[in-house]
Amino acid sequence: MVAGQIPVTKVYEDKYILAFLDIGPVSEGHTLVIPKMHYSRLDRCPVRVVKRIAEVLPVIAGAVAQATKCKGYNLLCNNGRAAGQLVDHLHFHIIPRNEGDKILEGWPAGEYSEGQAEKIAEQIRRNL
Amino acid sequence: MVAGQIPVTKVYEDKYILAFLDIGPVSEGHTLVIPKMHYSRLDRCPVRVVKRIAEVLPVIAGAVAQATKCKGYNLLCNNGRAAGQLVDHLHFHIIPRNEGDKILEGWPAGEYSEGQAEKIAEQIRRNL
Repeated sequence: MVAGQIPVTKVYEDKYILAFLDIGPVSEGHTLVIPKMHYSRLDRCPVRVVKRIAEVLPVIAGAVAQATKCKGYNLLCNNGRAAGQLVDHLHFHIIPRNEGDKILEGWPAGEYSEGQAEKIAEQIRRNL
Repeated sequence: MVAGQIPVTKVYEDKYILAFLDIGPVSEGHTLVIPKMHYSRLDRCPVRVVKRIAEVLPVIAGAVAQATKCKGYNLLCNNGRAAGQLVDHLHFHIIPRNEGDKILEGWPAGEYSEGQAEKIAEQIRRNL
């Protein structure tokens, strides 16, 4: 993804950070924020890189919230298989939430219909 | 808590940040990291403050993992009631996880027995 070999629906990109829509969204606008360099988990990621992620997280989270008109959102970073980390590259989920959706309980991963992801990503980009 | 009026079991403190054991732990060593200044949610927190949190998060997360010997951990920040935020002061959960514990599904908040919290906090502090 970082090398541009797997197509992703980008929401934000700079020299160090990439943000894109999760391809198995648990809610519309479910976004992943990752460092371009490879680190497996938070406690193995240098502070300078975590700070770069921190610089963009509030802005991207706000844009996702604005774009999806959600009532709230979770920032979630799973570290290790036991914590639900399925891909060994540090990533932060931004998960739009609405009352009673029980998303963390069930992790109801879905799929976007054709064109839907790009439309949502465009809304998020406009709110950055 | 920040003013020292509610007793907490501290894990880490500096000029800007406080980390302490959650009083309703979903697993042993469940830790909260908060900015001392009041911000309700991530997208309303200035970038400089999020960067200060980012500076300590990897270290505290690593110390919690070492101290509890967990197999993994979640970093979770709930924003808004719909996302499960119960206290309107920005806070990051560090939740030690083990295989099959289904903690995010059920949020099995418990209590520490007398002396147990201080013992765990001391282990975390030693691993900082």
